[in-house]
This record gives sequence, structure tokens and C-alpha cells, in this order.
Amino acid sequence: GYAMVDHHRALRSGHPETIFSPGKTVDQIVGIARRLLEKDANIMATRAERPVYEALKSVCDRVEYHEAARIVVMNRKPVVPTRTTILVMCAGTSDIPVAEEAAVTAETMGNRVQRLSDVGVAGIHRLLSNREKIQAASVLVVVAGMDGALPSVAAGLTDKPVIAVPTSIGYGASFGGLAALLTMLNSCANGVTVVNIDNGYGAGYAASMINRL
Amino acid sequence: GYAMVDHHRALRSGHPETIFSPGKTVDQIVGIARRLLEKDANIMATRAERPVYEALKSVCDRVEYHEAARIVVMNRKPVVPTRTTILVMCAGTSDIPVAEEAAVTAETMGNRVQRLSDVGVAGIHRLLSNREKIQAASVLVVVAGMDGALPSVAAGLTDKPVIAVPTSIGYGASFGGLAALLTMLNSCANGVTVVNIDNGYGAGYAASMINRL
Amino acid sequence: GYAMVDHHRALRSGHPETIFSPGKTVDQIVGIARRLLEKDANIMATRAERPVYEALKSVCDRVEYHEAARIVVMNRKPVVPTRTTILVMCAGTSDIPVAEEAAVTAETMGNRVQRLSDVGVAGIHRLLSNREKIQAASVLVVVAGMDGALPSVAAGLTDKPVIAVPTSIGYGASFGGLAALLTMLNSCANGVTVVNIDNGYGAGYAASMINRL
Amino acid sequence: GYAMVDHHRALRSGHPETIFSPGKTVDQIVGIARRLLEKDANIMATRAERPVYEALKSVCDRVEYHEAARIVVMNRKPVVPTRTTILVMCAGTSDIPVAEEAAVTAETMGNRVQRLSDVGVAGIHRLLSNREKIQAASVLVVVAGMDGALPSVAAGLTDKPVIAVPTSIGYGASFGGLAALLTMLNSCANGVTVVNIDNGYGAGYAASMINRL
Amino acid sequence: GYAMVDHHRALRSGHPETIFSPGKTVDQIVGIARRLLEKDANIMATRAERPVYEALKSVCDRVEYHEAARIVVMNRKPVVPTRTTILVMCAGTSDIPVAEEAAVTAETMGNRVQRLSDVGVAGIHRLLSNREKIQAASVLVVVAGMDGALPSVAAGLTDKPVIAVPTSIGYGASFGGLAALLTMLNSCANGVTVVNIDNGYGAGYAASMINRL
Amino acid sequence: GYAMVDHHRALRSGHPETIFSPGKTVDQIVGIARRLLEKDANIMATRAERPVYEALKSVCDRVEYHEAARIVVMNRKPVVPTRTTILVMCAGTSDIPVAEEAAVTAETMGNRVQRLSDVGVAGIHRLLSNREKIQAASVLVVVAGMDGALPSVAAGLTDKPVIAVPTSIGYGASFGGLAALLTMLNSCANGVTVVNIDNGYGAGYAASMINRL
Amino acid sequence: GYAMVDHHRALRSGHPETIFSPGKTVDQIVGIARRLLEKDANIMATRAERPVYEALKSVCDRVEYHEAARIVVMNRKPVVPTRTTILVMCAGTSDIPVAEEAAVTAETMGNRVQRLSDVGVAGIHRLLSNREKIQAASVLVVVAGMDGALPSVAAGLTDKPVIAVPTSIGYGASFGGLAALLTMLNSCANGVTVVNIDNGYGAGYAASMINRL
Amino acid sequence: GYAMVDHHRALRSGHPETIFSPGKTVDQIVGIARRLLEKDANIMATRAERPVYEALKSVCDRVEYHEAARIVVMNRKPVVPTRTTILVMCAGTSDIPVAEEAAVTAETMGNRVQRLSDVGVAGIHRLLSNREKIQAASVLVVVAGMDGALPSVAAGLTDKPVIAVPTSIGYGASFGGLAALLTMLNSCANGVTVVNIDNGYGAGYAASMINRL
Ligand SMILES: Nc1ncnc2c1ncn2[C@@H]1O[C@H](COP(=O)(O)O)[C@@H](O)[C@H]1O
Ligand SMILES: Nc1ncnc2c1ncn2[C@@H]1O[C@H](COP(=O)(O)O)[C@@H](O)[C@H]1O
Ligand SMILES: Nc1ncnc2c1ncn2[C@@H]1O[C@H](COP(=O)(O)O)[C@@H](O)[C@H]1O
Ligand SMILES: Nc1ncnc2c1ncn2[C@@H]1O[C@H](COP(=O)(O)O)[C@@H](O)[C@H]1O
Ligand SMILES: [Mg+2]
Ligand SMILES: [Mg+2]
Ligand SMILES: [Mg+2]
Ligand SMILES: [Mg+2]
Ligand SMILES: [Mg+2]
Ligand SMILES: [Mg+2]
Ligand SMILES: [Mg+2]
Ligand SMILES: [Mg+2]
Repeated sequence: GYAMVDHHRALRSGHPETIFSPGKTVDQIVGIARRLLEKDANIMATRAERPVYEALKSVCDRVEYHEAARIVVMNRKPVVPTRTTILVMCAGTSDIPVAEEAAVTAETMGNRVQRLSDVGVAGIHRLLSNREKIQAASVLVVVAGMDGALPSVAAGLTDKPVIAVPTSIGYGASFGGLAALLTMLNSCANGVTVVNIDNGYGAGYAASMINRL
Repeated sequence: GYAMVDHHRALRSGHPETIFSPGKTVDQIVGIARRLLEKDANIMATRAERPVYEALKSVCDRVEYHEAARIVVMNRKPVVPTRTTILVMCAGTSDIPVAEEAAVTAETMGNRVQRLSDVGVAGIHRLLSNREKIQAASVLVVVAGMDGALPSVAAGLTDKPVIAVPTSIGYGASFGGLAALLTMLNSCANGVTVVNIDNGYGAGYAASMINRL
Repeated sequence: GYAMVDHHRALRSGHPETIFSPGKTVDQIVGIARRLLEKDANIMATRAERPVYEALKSVCDRVEYHEAARIVVMNRKPVVPTRTTILVMCAGTSDIPVAEEAAVTAETMGNRVQRLSDVGVAGIHRLLSNREKIQAASVLVVVAGMDGALPSVAAGLTDKPVIAVPTSIGYGASFGGLAALLTMLNSCANGVTVVNIDNGYGAGYAASMINRL
Repeated sequence: GYAMVDHHRALRSGHPETIFSPGKTVDQIVGIARRLLEKDANIMATRAERPVYEALKSVCDRVEYHEAARIVVMNRKPVVPTRTTILVMCAGTSDIPVAEEAAVTAETMGNRVQRLSDVGVAGIHRLLSNREKIQAASVLVVVAGMDGALPSVAAGLTDKPVIAVPTSIGYGASFGGLAALLTMLNSCANGVTVVNIDNGYGAGYAASMINRL
Repeated sequence: GYAMVDHHRALRSGHPETIFSPGKTVDQIVGIARRLLEKDANIMATRAERPVYEALKSVCDRVEYHEAARIVVMNRKPVVPTRTTILVMCAGTSDIPVAEEAAVTAETMGNRVQRLSDVGVAGIHRLLSNREKIQAASVLVVVAGMDGALPSVAAGLTDKPVIAVPTSIGYGASFGGLAALLTMLNSCANGVTVVNIDNGYGAGYAASMINRL
Repeated sequence: GYAMVDHHRALRSGHPETIFSPGKTVDQIVGIARRLLEKDANIMATRAERPVYEALKSVCDRVEYHEAARIVVMNRKPVVPTRTTILVMCAGTSDIPVAEEAAVTAETMGNRVQRLSDVGVAGIHRLLSNREKIQAASVLVVVAGMDGALPSVAAGLTDKPVIAVPTSIGYGASFGGLAALLTMLNSCANGVTVVNIDNGYGAGYAASMINRL
Repeated sequence: GYAMVDHHRALRSGHPETIFSPGKTVDQIVGIARRLLEKDANIMATRAERPVYEALKSVCDRVEYHEAARIVVMNRKPVVPTRTTILVMCAGTSDIPVAEEAAVTAETMGNRVQRLSDVGVAGIHRLLSNREKIQAASVLVVVAGMDGALPSVAAGLTDKPVIAVPTSIGYGASFGGLAALLTMLNSCANGVTVVNIDNGYGAGYAASMINRL
Repeated sequence: GYAMVDHHRALRSGHPETIFSPGKTVDQIVGIARRLLEKDANIMATRAERPVYEALKSVCDRVEYHEAARIVVMNRKPVVPTRTTILVMCAGTSDIPVAEEAAVTAETMGNRVQRLSDVGVAGIHRLLSNREKIQAASVLVVVAGMDGALPSVAAGLTDKPVIAVPTSIGYGASFGGLAALLTMLNSCANGVTVVNIDNGYGAGYAASMINRL
């Protein structure tokens, strides 16, 4: 078998098993999903295009496709959602797919999730007019490309932890998200931690861990 | 005045005010401390060499110096420590100053802190023989230089959030901590978020925010 | 002679002649200054430590030293200052030397200059409470290290041109100012242009050109 | 709605609203345009291929397509053009699209614009024979790829502000425009500020801000 | 002729002649193979897609295609396999092509090869439950992308030489395998040496040289 | 205690325990040495300046200092040296300290070691006139800075494994050894594996592992 | 017109006018060629695919296509070739297109050119058996990708100037030719100068200038 | 002996033997010089501080020190200087040491050398007023830091070969000379080849090879 599946973690913690789709054939994804279903785990396939979804419908009948997030969720067992909220916000329209990856991951893991988009810092009133939403959240996932400045400002408006997600949106000296990544690592605001470029999944997962502590 | 001090945050949230010492003269640091003391805030001076400590003794009489962490703590008001624990671990002896910066920051902010050092992944039994400590913690701060591999392994041994801190320890292709930073950003383990190279303070602060949610 | 001095530009445009001190001996600086004085030009020596100032006092009797800016100004002929204002702002205390280099350069070239410091975006109220100053300026020079996020926010509060100056303040993944530089080049705000890391002089000079159009 | 449109700035300042087309579907662009038209703003869609233009014709009847600039202009209200001139020059034939993006942006914002192309520094007589045009301009936008040397030379021929635009034209060690970007940031000439690689729009916008002060 | 074939090494040492396929037309590959066959050498074509295999079938009748490894082996003369074993392990499913390139190279050169996959360090029990296999090997080839942490841990479980192979698997700050490469070069474990990103062939070759000493 | 010493590996494999001196005080080094001596291990302190040696003389009486290699060897128990040879060669005079680090490490671990220096590829006859030495070795450690070209040529003269060590010798575009490192990773010769810049210790250790298989 | 053609240089020096094809439409290339033909210059179009050649046949009847070099030569007037020779050599088969670009450029400019390919340093005998050819040349153009080591060795075999051309051939840590470029810039051999990655044209041109001095 | 001296090249070609001083003790330099003197070679020690010169006076009595170039020349045998000229020019005063390294190297090797300094492109008239000097030279060495633009312009004023030398002069985004290096590699002018950052020696040597063809 080409993949040793680690059931321990999933069973122990209730966390879903995740299949990262890029670089796998649809057949490989179906094969991995089948084995995970035997163990009755919750399953997510991330970065999944529509054909992956179509193929997985034949394997399991509780399958949903979150198109904007490019996530297939299978076999989801009802989780009592948290009462506290994770706020997932992003700077520009083009950052929405990464933000959705974070939001859907967190929802699948049983969190109440709020969304806020198009609040880039160049028009600061857009952010400030959402101050209440920001201060109501227990954990924030803040997604931005290009200059990546949003987490620094957002973290200053709350005393809750902020997970910053740089995106590859931009051109020229954005160097595929490197500029935004460095901005976030150098944030002057307290409480900001950072994940890999475009890693909405990782941010949503860590936010859930924190929110469900 | 050369520094607009933001008291709002400190008063509102009970968090300490922090003075980042590098690039400031001892006189400037004393001046900033004096103004902060007027407002009765808890104060930390980070990256502080001993002369900073000596000078601050004349300003306030509740001053402690954490030498390994290079932190001066002033005017600390008793905080009821959390019952949950932050585990601060590091890979090698040379990473200890950064780990201590995280640990002392978290303690000053009112957290119970456990320490674990010299558990680099090249001798995995050292990590495994501490599995209980690892699984008892609510949040982990994992500090490593050179290959920066420790957070990936540590995060696999817990289902709690892990804040990874790359250090500038290493030589040649470690490029001042860049190698460890990239390793951590690319960690395959769930729940890992990352701060800037050598930023023990930032990791301790975020860990406290999470632990005190 | 080791330096072909270009008098044309200075005489034609009233702009000062500038000596960049690093890598030159005090003797070389004195020599260049002497030749420029023959032509009766305004002269600035930038990045000048105090001994440069001391030596230049023997060469000319209208010499001032701007210590924070590390600039010696010589032979300055009265210029009627502009009525419009250049606002020079910076994010943190450590960015002040670069901001002063910009401010003194602009003042020497005959501009009215306003200063604003310690308005980093992590405490956005500090910036917002200065909105009037910001909107009163005709040109803005915005100086920041670490995450370099200030110009993006500041430019959103005005419709005047913003010259962004990244500084080398920071550590780790700030890579000597590279992080702040990339942030600024990728700014989502309209009207932001950028100069080299720590180049307060260049920013002040360009701001003056714009303000005196 | 997927995009919070900021009308304040447009209405206040007379500046156009701009839609950055890459990463948006034609439908999304049409949707954003419709909402902006309700508010009667001037609208530009940049980096727009012909199908974007075709689709926008159905939304508004004052639509022009500037093919070389890849810009669609909609609903343009007559602006009295400035009497002073912005000179947009570029080094090579391949830099023309970026130069046109700057020129059309500036024209749309109500500026008189002069163009000059194919004046790379390797044949300096081409530049020198245009000295009058250069000295007649109030602001210069100077576009160059490969070695990016043109702004240094051009800025030496004028005492007006120069906005330098590196392009991604080149190969090998041009690293997608990085070489030209670094050249421009390190320019020895006074008055040069820099925008992101290929960012003709940003240069044109800033030039307009300066020219219309 | 477009390629001076060096028969000396092949004949002297029994090592195969290898054709690196990328950047060569199928015709060129066939031509080179024909000349090598005249000298009766063992031949491998690496990074070979199926059409290369199809074309080579007409040239020689002892041709095998290892699809997962993308290697065509021709004219292989029986080599008595070593009794000692090379263990080729990899962290994730997506690293398998590179691991197979190493494994097939080593097998073709007459080595007994063991395989182990999906043993990434984030689930350390997967590695530990294979400790016997690890300790039975004389040489290890350890393949990993993303954080590249596997060689550090694996090398700690054996006192035999480890050849680490970074792969280009990953996204964002993996920078095409650079992150994994740096991790491996900075490994804290003794006995780790490193080859180029995705260079399974080079690792298999060096492992064979060591194993057959 | 500040360092968890791992005796298992040393006792099991006969390999020495190594203390990496940079970033440790002389007192810390003495402390670690004392604990290791209790277990009767062979000990090396690498990157050790003379004062480390002086201090260690008080701890143990079998102490030698290899000045060129900057290595202190303590308590060395006689090992029957291998009959096969490790050849350590370097390109230039300035590379000798790194080559010596490799050579002394290998000797301490019980290997017969040959040395060859000043055989840079720009004078290829120097290398060719040593062809016999090269072909007599079982393993080669090849050390070079600047262009790092030596391993490619040396590996072509033998069919034994070559461990390439880039050094930080050079200036300008050598970028602290990065140029040599990349050269070696891209070597066109079979059998070349690479260690970190200046890592003579790691190369000597791996060479010993191979030579003593 | 979109291109200011500089006839001075061509007429003065007899050098050809060159059109760099990438990023230009066939129509633009034809247009530029037409204008150049009016002045009766020698013309080269580099990086030209076959359709460019086909189109240019309609413009001029003295047109040749050098397919391997991807160069179209038009209107070539007979030049008495030099008696001294330029040797163009390359390391691997995949470097041939770049080597041909250099060779055809030099031939077009009236030089006697020798070619040598597949002489990579990993099989040094291939180079040494061509020592006579090497020592007969007045100028050498040495082309190599991957480790880029060939110029260092070749320059050691002659006391004539060597122009080194890195190519983008390679993968992984070759970073698109960066590795080879750095190797060449750090060459320990005297007399080596370097051009941009894949810039066969520039190398051939400079070699001609030297050879025809 | 720590250095295998290669007399062949020196004797065969009349070129001097060169000792690169950095990283060598004065004693080592004296030792190498002594051995070279036995063979009666011309000797240069580059990057040599004054104490090296003082020590070498005791070894040989024909010793000169070129302070600005940091070169000691020993035992120089009269060479009939060429009639053609090498022009060594540099952009700024701070580039003079590198330019002098080139000039003294070329003079020592028997070339007539012209010097030109302070002709940076930001004041193009300084360059243009030296057009005759430029066009009189057979080879040009063009030295520049910061934006490194001078070679592109200079090469356009001559049809002779230009060797470009980037210097480490600059700050911020000059990245130790990287910016100037990239500019020069991307030069749009024909006939430009490049050497390592600050490598005046290499440029002077290659220029001599060309000039003495
Ligand atoms: N060791 C540290 N590392 C990173 N950031 C720090 C550190 N210490 C303090 N800071 C941050 O620096 C701010 C104070 O900076 P300053 O105003 O320059 O003293 C604090 O509010 C923290 O956000
Ligand atoms: N060609 C361009 N290059 C850089 N920035 C642009 C360009 N066109 C538009 N923008 C910026 O992008 C914003 C619109 O982005 P979006 O909301 O994603 O359409 C505008 O307000 C401009 O600040
Ligand atoms: N010169 C050296 N270069 C690289 N790694 C070394 C060197 N010397 C020792 N090491 C490694 O560093 C480890 C000891 O590190 P430490 O515990 O910090 O003293 C040893 O087990 C070796 O793996
Ligand atoms: N200033 C310099 N910059 C670069 N390379 C140099 C320099 N001086 C000497 N070299 C080279 O270094 C070699 C001598 O190096 P070494 O044997 O280490 O003294 C000479 O043969 C030159 O090729
Ligand atoms: Mg906050
Ligand atoms: Mg975990
Ligand atoms: Mg604005
Ligand atoms: Mg100017
Ligand atoms: Mg081991
Ligand atoms: Mg070999
Ligand atoms: Mg030579
Ligand atoms: Mg020329």
C-alpha cells in the first residue's frame, strides 16, 4: 500500500483525516479515502478540483463539496459547535479561496466561524467599521497577499491570538507570497503567529485547536 | 517625547508593556520605563544586558533580572497563575536563551511554565522519554536552530497548538536561521504556527494569549 | 583630483551639493567641501559622525550639526520656505535617525516640515488620532522597519503622494530591511513610491522636488 | 457581496476606481463594474484582455479599450487636463505595455502625457537628442527592464521627480525584474523613487498625484 | 556526433551508462543508446516518459520500463546482488517517484534494496515501528519534501551512512525544494550527506558505491 | 543540567562524543566533558580555540590539541586503524582548516587518512599528478571554496564515493560559501554527496562511517 | 514608430544590427527588419523560431536560418574572416543551443570559429584530449550549465581570455542557471569573465570584439 | 609544504604569480614569496595591508607598495609596455581601490593604463566630456557600485570590449554588490563581460590578456 494511514490521531482526538490532493491521481485519492472510511473517520480532501468530488461520491454518500475552498468533506459526524467564534478575514477578493480553506477546515472541525473580506489596510475604515466583529472573536485567522499588512493592524484591535496566512496573490516583488510572509513574520503586533504561504488549511486547523482548548 | 506609550492595551488586558532594548541607550530605556511606571503597568525590558538592569534598579524597587532570558521585569503585580501549562522546549544547549525569553515572558504574564531542553530529533529517545510532559501541556513553544526539525516531531506527539521558534544558531547554509524558519513553515504536522527567528518573546506572548483564553 | 564636482546642477537648481560620508576619510571630506565652497554652493554631509563636523568647522563658519540626522549643513543660504508641508512620520523610536535624515534634508532644501513618530500600525489609534496632520500635508515621507506596514495605512488616509522608506531596524527574517522594502513595494495603497533601505536622504530630496514643483 | 467598494476615496478625490483584473472572472469584473457605475464613478479595469472589454460594453456605453495598455476605461467624465506634462519614457520596445499602463492611467486621471520609447542607455545619443522633452516635463515615469539603468541617467538630465518602473523583461539573471528593481533602488541620481516590477498603473497614479498637486 | 561517450568508466567499473532524458529529443536518446549498445554497456535512461521507452524497444530487446521511477533499463547484464541492503525510505506518497528513482538505480547497479514509504516525522510511530528495517540496512537513502525533517530523525536511529534527498514536493515557502534542502544540509545528526533536489538517481548511485565498497 | 548527554550512541557504536564549541562558555564545555568522561567515552571538542584546550587539560590527562583543525581530542582509546584509506584533499591553502577538521575527525574515529592540498582545478596538472593517490582511496573528502569545482573533477578520477565540503572561503558573489555549495549540489559527476558549508567534521564522520562499513 | 534604430554603431563598426525576438510579434520583427534593410545593415534575429524565419524570407532574399542557434541572418555582407580562432566549447549536449548562439554570432561577425562539445569536467580526459585545440585558440567561449565548472578547468589550460556562459540547464538547486553563474563568477582561474545565463549572443559578440582587436 | 606553487604558467606566459593575502598570515605570505622568488618569477601580493609590505622588504629588494590598490609588487622585470591602452574608469570616489587593483595589475603585466574616476551616470556630462579617452582605449575596465549602471553607458560609447567590475560600495538593497553585479550581467550594451564583486585583480588580468593578444 502506498500510504500508511495513521488512525491513532484521528480516533484519539476527533480531528479529521486530511488528504492533500495535488500530486495525487483521482484513483489514489479514492483509494486513500476508502481505507480511511473503513475506520469511520471524518475525512477532508483539500485543494480538490471538482473531478475529485465526483469520484468520491461513489465511495461514500455523505460527501459535500465546498467549491470556493476547494475542499471535499466526507462522512462528517455531527460535532457540537463551539460557542466561541473564529473570525476568518481577508484583505482582497483574490484571497478568498485561501480564507475559505481556513473557514471550511475550522467549521468541519466543529467551530463557529465568522467571515470578513475585502478589508485591506489601504482603506482602514473598512476594518475599523468591523471592530465589533473583530473583538467578539476568540481566535482570528487573517489572510493577505501583496503587502501582507492586514495582520499587524488587525492584531492591534484585539488581545486574542492571530494566525496570519500570507497568500501568493500579487506580482513582481511579491515573489509568490514571500513579501507577505516576511511582513507577517516581522509583525510589530503582539500575538501574531504565521503559517506557510496559501496554507489556509493549516491556519484553520491551528485555530480550531486553540478555540477548542 | 520620543515614544508615544500606548497604555490602553496594558490597562485593558493586564498584559505587560514591553521595551525592546536593542538600539536604545540605557538612558532612553530608563526614560520610557519611568513614564510607564507612572501608569502603574507591569513592565518588561527584553534583550537587556546587565547594565540596563543596574540602571532600572534606581527607578523602581520591584526589579528582577532573568539573565539567561536577558529580560528585566519591573513592578510585577501578582497574577494568579493558570492551572494549565505551557511547555517550552528546545533542541540544543545554544537555543536556551531564546527558550528562556519565551518562558520568562509567559511566566510574567501569569502562566505555569514547564521547560525541556536538549531534546533534538537526532536522538529521538530523548524526546520520546518526555512524552508525558509533552502531552500534559496545553500549549507548546518549540525552539530549534540548524535544521529546525523539532516542532514537526513534537507536534506529532500532541494534539495541542505548537508555536515554533526558529533560532539563528547554526552556520553556513543555516543562513542566520533561515533554514530553520523554512523547515518550520513547511512542517507536515498539524497545529504548527511560526514566529520570527529568535523571537522567544513573541512566542511566549502568543502562548500566553492562547493558554489564558 | 579624486572627485569631479558637478556644479551645474547645484547652481542651476538651488539644490545643495551632498557628500556621502561613509568610506571617505575626514580629510577627503574636508577636501571635497573646500572645493564646493569655492563655488559658493549649499553643502550637506550625510551619515556624518561628530568628528566630520568638528573638522568642517575649520573650513567654513556657517556649519550646523544635526546629530539625530547625522547631517552636517554648511554655508546654507536662506531659502524662503514653502507654505505647503512635508510630513515625515515613522513607526518606531528606532526609525527616528532615518526619519530625521529625511526631515533635515527637506528643511535644508527649503521646505516646511512636520514630524510624527511612534505611530506604528499595531496601535492604529496612534495614527488615527493624527489624521488632521496627515491630511494637511502635501507630501508624506513614511519611514518604517520590521513589517514596514505603515505606508500602506498612511497612504489610505490621504490622496497626496507618499514616499515610503524601509529601514534596517529589525532582526531575523527582517533581513536587514528587505522585509520592509518588499512590503512597501507591494503596497496595495495608491500613490506609494519607495526608496532604498535607510535612504532618508533620498526620500527627503524627492519630497522636496515634489513639494516645490 | 464579494467586494466592499470604497466610494469615499473616488468621490472625494475625483480619482477613478480601479479593478485589477487578474484572478477575477469576467463575471466578477462585470459585477464589480455594475456596482461602481451606480455611484457614477470613473472606472478603469487594468490588465484586462479583450474579452473583459467585450463584456463591459454591455454594462456601460462609454467604454474605451486601450489595447497596448491592457486597460478598459469606463464612464470617463471630462477632466480639464493639466497644463504641465508627465513624460513617460521606456528603454526598449518590450517595455511599451508597462509604459502604456502608466500613460493611460495618467491620462485618464486628467494629465497631459508625453511618450518616449526605445531610448535605452546603451545608445546614449537617443536619450540626449530628447533632452528638451525631458526638461519640459514636470514629472517623469521611467520604465526599464534588464539592467534598469535608464532612470539613473534620465534623472541626471532633469531636476524634477522621477518615478522608476522596473519591468520583468529580460532573462537569466534578470530574475523576473529583480535586477532592474535593485538597480533603480540603488540609483545614484537624486529624485528617483521606485514602484513594484511592471507596476505601470502605480507609477501613473503617483505621477498624477504629483502633477496635480 | 553530438555526444562524446565515455566508455572507460563504464567498462572499468561495471557501472551503467546513464542518459538524462529531459531536454533531449526521443531521436537523440535513441541515437545515444545505439552508440552505447555497440560497446555492450548497461544503459539507463532516467526521467524518461513512456514514448522514450517505446522508441528504445526498437533498438534493443532487453528493455524494461520502471514507470514509477521513470527509468528505462536496457541490456542489463546479471549482477550478483549484494548481501547487504540499501534502505530507500520516503516521507510522503508524493515523494515516491524520487525514491523509486533511487531504488531502481541501486537495483540496476546490483544492490539488494528495501523500500519504506509514508513514514513522515509528524507521526513518529510510523518510523519507530520500522526500527528493525532501519537498523538492518548498510546504507540509507532518505527522501523527503516540505520540511525535509526525515533524514535527521532516521540518521539518529542508525549508525550507518544516510544519503538525504530533498524533493520539490511542497508549496509556498518550500520554494521548489529549497526548504527541504536547507533542512538536510543543517541536519544535527551524524552521517548525513545530501544530494540535489529530486536527485534520486545520484543518491541511488552513491549508495551503490558505498554498499559495494 | 543544561545538556542531556546521549551515551547510547557512543557506547553502542564506538563513535566519539562531540562537543561543538561555538556559543558555549569554556565552563560549559568543561562541564559537558566531565560528565562524558564519567562514562568513559572518547571525546572531541570541535571549533575549539586554545583556551578550551588549556581548560580541558585539567579535566583529563589524555588530551591532544590539533591546532590547524581546531579540535581537542580527549581520552582517546586506541582503535585499530582501517587498512583502507580516506583521502582528504582541498583546493587552496585557505581551505586547510576545514580539511583538517575532516582529517582529524576521521583519524580519531580510527581511519587511515591521506592528505592532499593546493590542487585547485585551475591548474589541473596538480590534480592529475596525484591520480594514484586518488585512485588508492576508498572514500574521498573533497574540500573547496570559491567556485567549488574540485569535487566534480576529482569524482571523475575515481569510482569511489566522494563527500564534497564547500567552504566559506571567497568574497563577493561567493556569498559565504553558497556558490561553492550550489556547484557541488549540481555536480555532474557520479557519487558526489554534499555537507554543509565548512562542515569538515560532518564530512570526516560520514567518511569514517563509509570506510568502516 | 516603436523602435528608434541606431544606425551609427552598425555603420561605424561593421557590426550587425540584432533583433532579440522574444516578446515581439512576427509582424514587429518584420517591421524592424525592413527599416534596418533600408540602411543596408547586416541583420541578425536571435531566439528566433522557424516562423520568424519564414516571414523574413519575404523581406529579403539573403536569409539563412541557423536552427540549432535559433538565429536568422539577413543580408550578410562578406567579411574576410580572421585568421585567429575563437573556440566555442560546451560541457553537455543540452548546452549546444547556447554554444551555437555564440558560434553563429561570432561567425556572422567575421570570425573563424572552432566547436567542441560534450567535454564536461566529470570526464576530464575528454577535455585533456583536446588540449591542442584549446591552446590554438585566441579567445575561448566556454558554455556550461549545472555545476558550471568547465571554464575554471579550461582557463587553466590556456593563457588566452575565456568568456564563460552559464546556461539554465539543470534542475533543483541549479535555480535556472544561478548555480553555474555563481561558479563562474567565483572561478579561481585567471582570465575568466562572465555573461548572463544563456547569453550565447553576448559571449559571441564580445569574443568577436576581442578576436578582431 | 602548504602550497604547491604552479611555476609552469608563470614561466610559460610571462604572467606574474599572485598571492591572495586575506586569510594568510604574514609568515605564510613570506614563505610563499620566498619559494616563488627561487624561480625568479614576477610576484604580486593582492589585498595586502602595509605589514605585508614591510615583511616582504626583507625577502627581496625590488619591492613596491601600491597603497591605494593594496598590492605589493616584487621582483618586477621590465616588460615593454603595450602601445595600446587599457582604460580603467570608475563611477565614484569609493570605487577607487577596486579600480586601482585593476590598474596596477594591468600595469604590472606590461600594459599602458589610463585612469578616469568620478564619472557616474547620474551626471552624464562627466562621461561625455571624456569621450575621446574612452574611444582611444583598446580595452575598458569599468568599475561601479550601487546601481552599477556605468558599464552599460560606457560600452555604448565604444566598440571595444568592456570588462565590468561591480563593487560592494552601497548600502541597503545593494546587498554587498549584488545589485551592481546583476545590473552588469543584464547590460543591454554589446561587448560587456563581468567579473566577481570587487575583483579588480581579475578584471586587470583579463584586460591584459586581451590587450596583449
Ligand atoms: N524580544 C522581542 N522580540 C520581538 N519583539 C519584541 C521583543 N520585545 C519587545 N518586542 C515588541 O516591541 C515592542 C516595543 O518596541 P519599542 O517600542 O521599540 O520598545 C513591544 O510592544 C513588543 O511588541
Ligand atoms: N495594474 C495594477 N497594478 C498594481 N495595482 C493595481 C493595478 N490595477 C489596480 N491596482 C490596485 O488594485 C486595486 C484594486 O484591486 P482589486 O480590488 O483586487 O480589484 C486598486 O485600487 C489599485 O490600488
Ligand atoms: N564542527 C562541527 N560541525 C558540525 N557539527 C558538529 C561539529 N562538531 C560537532 N557537531 C555536531 O554537534 C553535536 C554536538 O552539539 P552540541 O550538543 O551543541 O555540542 C555533535 O553530536 C555533532 O553532531
Ligand atoms: N585580489 C584578487 N581577487 C581575486 N583573485 C585573486 C586576487 N589575487 C589573487 N587572486 C587569485 O588567487 C590565486 C592565488 O591564490 P592563493 O594561492 O590562495 O594565494 C592567484 O593565482 C589568482 O588567480
Ligand atoms: Mg492584539
Ligand atoms: Mg499535533
Ligand atoms: Mg492615499
Ligand atoms: Mg535629476
Ligand atoms: Mg546515525
Ligand atoms: Mg567517480
Ligand atoms: Mg588561463
Ligand atoms: Mg560598445
